[in-house]
Amino acid sequence: MRNDQREVNNLRPIKITKNYISHPEGSVLIEVGNTKVICNASIEDRVPPFMRGQGKGWITAEYAMLPRATAQRNIRESSKGKVSGRTMEIQRLIGRALRAVVDLDKIGERTVWVDCDVIQADGGTRTASITGAFIAVVLAFGKLLETKAISKMPVRDYLAAISVGVLPDGKEILDLNYEEDFQAHVDMNIVMTGSGEFVEIQGTGEEATFSNKQLQAMLGLAEEGLQQIVEVQKELIGNLADRIGETNPAK
Amino acid sequence: MRNDQREVNNLRPIKITKNYISHPEGSVLIEVGNTKVICNASIEDRVPPFMRGQGKGWITAEYAMLPRATAQRNIRESSKGKVSGRTMEIQRLIGRALRAVVDLDKIGERTVWVDCDVIQADGGTRTASITGAFIAVVLAFGKLLETKAISKMPVRDYLAAISVGVLPDGKEILDLNYEEDFQAHVDMNIVMTGSGEFVEIQGTGEEATFSNKQLQAMLGLAEEGLQQIVEVQKELIGNLADRIGETNPAK
Amino acid sequence: MRNDQREVNNLRPIKITKNYISHPEGSVLIEVGNTKVICNASIEDRVPPFMRGQGKGWITAEYAMLPRATAQRNIRESSKGKVSGRTMEIQRLIGRALRAVVDLDKIGERTVWVDCDVIQADGGTRTASITGAFIAVVLAFGKLLETKAISKMPVRDYLAAISVGVLPDGKEILDLNYEEDFQAHVDMNIVMTGSGEFVEIQGTGEEATFSNKQLQAMLGLAEEGLQQIVEVQKELIGNLADRIGETNPAK
Amino acid sequence: MRNDQREVNNLRPIKITKNYISHPEGSVLIEVGNTKVICNASIEDRVPPFMRGQGKGWITAEYAMLPRATAQRNIRESSKGKVSGRTMEIQRLIGRALRAVVDLDKIGERTVWVDCDVIQADGGTRTASITGAFIAVVLAFGKLLETKAISKMPVRDYLAAISVGVLPDGKEILDLNYEEDFQAHVDMNIVMTGSGEFVEIQGTGEEATFSNKQLQAMLGLAEEGLQQIVEVQKELIGNLADRIGETNPAK
Amino acid sequence: MRNDQREVNNLRPIKITKNYISHPEGSVLIEVGNTKVICNASIEDRVPPFMRGQGKGWITAEYAMLPRATAQRNIRESSKGKVSGRTMEIQRLIGRALRAVVDLDKIGERTVWVDCDVIQADGGTRTASITGAFIAVVLAFGKLLETKAISKMPVRDYLAAISVGVLPDGKEILDLNYEEDFQAHVDMNIVMTGSGEFVEIQGTGEEATFSNKQLQAMLGLAEEGLQQIVEVQKELIGNLADRIGETNPAK
Amino acid sequence: MRNDQREVNNLRPIKITKNYISHPEGSVLIEVGNTKVICNASIEDRVPPFMRGQGKGWITAEYAMLPRATAQRNIRESSKGKVSGRTMEIQRLIGRALRAVVDLDKIGERTVWVDCDVIQADGGTRTASITGAFIAVVLAFGKLLETKAISKMPVRDYLAAISVGVLPDGKEILDLNYEEDFQAHVDMNIVMTGSGEFVEIQGTGEEATFSNKQLQAMLGLAEEGLQQIVEVQKELIGNLADRIGETNPAK
Repeated sequence: MRNDQREVNNLRPIKITKNYISHPEGSVLIEVGNTKVICNASIEDRVPPFMRGQGKGWITAEYAMLPRATAQRNIRESSKGKVSGRTMEIQRLIGRALRAVVDLDKIGERTVWVDCDVIQADGGTRTASITGAFIAVVLAFGKLLETKAISKMPVRDYLAAISVGVLPDGKEILDLNYEEDFQAHVDMNIVMTGSGEFVEIQGTGEEATFSNKQLQAMLGLAEEGLQQIVEVQKELIGNLADRIGETNPAK
Repeated sequence: MRNDQREVNNLRPIKITKNYISHPEGSVLIEVGNTKVICNASIEDRVPPFMRGQGKGWITAEYAMLPRATAQRNIRESSKGKVSGRTMEIQRLIGRALRAVVDLDKIGERTVWVDCDVIQADGGTRTASITGAFIAVVLAFGKLLETKAISKMPVRDYLAAISVGVLPDGKEILDLNYEEDFQAHVDMNIVMTGSGEFVEIQGTGEEATFSNKQLQAMLGLAEEGLQQIVEVQKELIGNLADRIGETNPAK
Repeated sequence: MRNDQREVNNLRPIKITKNYISHPEGSVLIEVGNTKVICNASIEDRVPPFMRGQGKGWITAEYAMLPRATAQRNIRESSKGKVSGRTMEIQRLIGRALRAVVDLDKIGERTVWVDCDVIQADGGTRTASITGAFIAVVLAFGKLLETKAISKMPVRDYLAAISVGVLPDGKEILDLNYEEDFQAHVDMNIVMTGSGEFVEIQGTGEEATFSNKQLQAMLGLAEEGLQQIVEVQKELIGNLADRIGETNPAK
Repeated sequence: MRNDQREVNNLRPIKITKNYISHPEGSVLIEVGNTKVICNASIEDRVPPFMRGQGKGWITAEYAMLPRATAQRNIRESSKGKVSGRTMEIQRLIGRALRAVVDLDKIGERTVWVDCDVIQADGGTRTASITGAFIAVVLAFGKLLETKAISKMPVRDYLAAISVGVLPDGKEILDLNYEEDFQAHVDMNIVMTGSGEFVEIQGTGEEATFSNKQLQAMLGLAEEGLQQIVEVQKELIGNLADRIGETNPAK
Repeated sequence: MRNDQREVNNLRPIKITKNYISHPEGSVLIEVGNTKVICNASIEDRVPPFMRGQGKGWITAEYAMLPRATAQRNIRESSKGKVSGRTMEIQRLIGRALRAVVDLDKIGERTVWVDCDVIQADGGTRTASITGAFIAVVLAFGKLLETKAISKMPVRDYLAAISVGVLPDGKEILDLNYEEDFQAHVDMNIVMTGSGEFVEIQGTGEEATFSNKQLQAMLGLAEEGLQQIVEVQKELIGNLADRIGETNPAK
Repeated sequence: MRNDQREVNNLRPIKITKNYISHPEGSVLIEVGNTKVICNASIEDRVPPFMRGQGKGWITAEYAMLPRATAQRNIRESSKGKVSGRTMEIQRLIGRALRAVVDLDKIGERTVWVDCDVIQADGGTRTASITGAFIAVVLAFGKLLETKAISKMPVRDYLAAISVGVLPDGKEILDLNYEEDFQAHVDMNIVMTGSGEFVEIQGTGEEATFSNKQLQAMLGLAEEGLQQIVEVQKELIGNLADRIGETNPAK
């Protein structure tokens, strides 16, 4: 049993509140255990300079934490005047993951800005951000469909993310909370599609290493957990669920 | 009647949720109409270098907006690498206002960090921040009282803030929403104590001016509104209300 | 009697030297007691991007101090790589105040850059900057009138600023020098037009508060002082004095 | 056959020149095909503030490219005034990888600064950096052993890195050059120890996804390639090879 | 004859106003033709970290221009957030030149901060800064002598600077104004001591070259001009003139 | 005899490797004694904004050191977020020197970016950079001649640079290594053309001065040394040597 009485393969409770903030085209508050992230998707009617004139769109993401999202207050990155390496890694990951399931050719010269702001942190903030951002993006595209700015849902498949890891006793576990993450010898983040393909695998031993067998065990836990999360996503987006994948050639 | 059906002297509905975020010593979500601000107060057991060795404490504030708190997405200040003049003005105002009602001599060499993060904006974000931050700070001192780190509530009086203004038709109004703020010829922010003393007055005509008579009318509206807000604060802090002012010499 | 033998309602001696620097379209050195500020107004034949194509102009201000304008040497803001919150507040104030009395519609797509550089400081640098900048701007518009670049003086009214405050003994005073400013419980800056309308009121209690009665006493002192300053301005600008207000509809 | 006539499981030629720069404690030029990286390891006799007083050491890495290491000249990061997200990701990866095989407890309060400067780039610069940095670090520890500053080689195992990927035609390949990297649907970097344990796995589909079967194929290619690279490393370090692992408890 | 009716070997009129700003230990306004520079010398009772504990002092200089010191307004370096290469070159030159004639061993662990702020520019601002800064530094040391903080004047010799150049017609000239500087093919700045030794020579052909013969002609002009400037300096510092050089071993 | 057994007028061995890096249009590794600099010249088909539409080109240079080019590791300028004054001085010098011998009118609206990256430093890095950059630029123009992008070699003359100085014992020496540079009372850098004209003279006494006689001795040493270096350059560029100067009117 883990420090919060979960089995090794148990997810923490997930709660996603749609339309949490009123201004963005898509907005959710995602809660995964005690981790809480506001995910807003904004549609801008132009693309960055390096993409102009190609007739396709772009998705980019930014990630931040409130200073007191954590047990110790962190200095605000705007006060420091620069974004940390950790923040950059995470926001690049979120953007890349979303681009893997969106048909950028089908959204016109538009940019989707995804903002993931962690208001309370207890481990897994980057994976919660991806899972929540996916919904925010689908909702934002829902708005474009409503106004007939686009004619098909440009999202090819579901997208969700979860962490797995290896505790000092060698046990592989799913969905690490902060305390577990702090202790773990191996920390791995997996991003997958609804059909079970990998989008991103990032596994790291901090002052430690891991075997192929441990890798396989972690991948198994992640796959199981991600299927459950995708079910939550499907239910939440209601009617829009039928439209996921409608730009896929096969469909 | 105003654009949201209020009378000129009507406040918007105020809702304050205590202990909104779990980590900070004091935390509230304050909602004033559609404006929503998370106010967190963090206690740090040391003071900035310029105050060391004086045996007294310090209060400082930081203010920020989520990029999509507004109708148009704003560029994140951490991405720009610097804090705007507007942000600096507001966070200096919040800190100064709080210091006016706190007995810094009675909190030891501690810093209270107040973070006001606007998650949704519809006018009056700086005044909502002050009103909410006051509660967060009282709750944080409540924690220090519980652990007997301090023996008296170091808050001398209530503190609240509100905006007043003059519309293009010359009408003075209380508690401007975004649309009113955008149109107003004069915009004034008033910070007052529970006993009706001024802490800060900032009145500005942007490409316009105002008379002493208009000033008096605005001050009258503000005073009336602030008394109502202080009542909300009193009720909210429950038992701690009895302790406000216990470091006052007269008491 | 005050630390420099003035009565509570006495201004310090004011001296304004026109055309102090040769390059700018308008330039003055303003001396208020021991405070000395170079105010330069520069005309640029274009407006910032956010104002292009509207057929109107813009006024913006920058403020700085020489490192040794003060008793202790300050680190240069260019060396620190960023502008302090105090500087930003002051330069935003100066620009806003000037815009309140200038008909931006009547100056074409031009920007007036106002630079206020404090070479010696003894309190009241921001108010001296506004009083001096007003003259520099009038002189610059005088140049545009001479070359017939514009046909009417686009300045609607005089503009001047002064500080008032409350000393620890409760006495309200006019035009604080550095030592008084340092001691004062309340510090207020008032910007007014020649016809006695308010442009800006900024009153602050640092770790103190003030009553409406004190506010009224301070406003009275300021009004009296500002009338005297406007007389100095009128005399100084000579022939241009007749043209102030010539774009006012009533005139 | 690939664009440079290699088989899918062929490495590019690897050449490592020891003691390339004279000042650093450890220095190599590593060439992997047309990719050339100078890897310097510097020993500093203190640790960063967050590690002081723990009696252990630290390893940190920095990574940069000469502006014209690439086909198009890049703007220098020192001119831009900030380090890009890509650079941060890579230098964090290099540092983390090295820390996984070094006994920080055995090096005293010292910092090893690893500088990887790419002078010519043709894909795989981050993996070449890790492979080369390992040698530079071993050489630097060799210096400390010579001067008896430490008594045992604090490196537990070999460390090398390689890229694998999936080409658009679905073929998995080892050690991508720039052109292959540009085309690949999946790009994965693997860091492994000499005994075949994973240190880091980073696999990414940019606008694409990959299956578990593809993952396994890529891991197989990587393992095979990394064994060859470790052989090159062993030969290169000569006598020091016998001392790798001498702090391992088992040994 | 030159554009301002001077002969090739004529200096522009020089005027130095002592004690121009009241706060600094040494302060002058130096006017060389239409170039005007405020030179302030501030004494700080400590040295920078790299010099601590050596029992000797340091002199450092900073240089800036008001935005409208020039015909076109320049963007403020504090707004740009960084100091230009030109500014850095000049302030390094001023500091180095002053250090060449000051006995740093004789001033204790003190830093002399020299601030040269150009309020009006017409060529030769860096050389006017050096000539003026020398006086400001002597006055500041005069203050230290008065309070007996030091017992001997630590200035070994006079120090002055001037520009020379070659016009497009091949004529060598002394003390270039802005228009001449703009046209000149060669621009050279010479810093010399009162006894005629070189401290610094910086000669530059911008898109041009110069012969040894031209160099000698320019050095001759400079030497002649600098002797006249040193006479102005001697007269200005009055009684302190007798003390220049009193730390020289020979004296 | 000097610390490395050279006579006062001896250069250190010079070795220049052409086409050192494969991507740039011109590239050399220059070694002067133990100083090693990679000089790359890149051609960009546009000019900076301030030069557009004039039908002529521009040459600009950047200079940097690897952190461990020196005995002590230096902090990377990209990590500090700004370029030092020393770096700025050097890169401005290199660019200015190259522009003095290139016919910018004859290269079309192109920018030549010259990057000098010091990989190992032992004194004289700026002069080695100029000597090496000259070759890189000639090679880059050779590429433009080959592709007939330009029809004449736009380089008017050879360009080389060397340091001279005065040791504490008063001896003038040529081509200082690091230890000599550290001790020298006077340090001078001379840039000359192949026909013996000066392009730049920068002589500095750090806490010392020098006489005209010493100046002449140093200039003599420099001239002699530079003639030898130009011979090395001539030989190295082979056929291109015939084309140097072909845009000169006289030719």
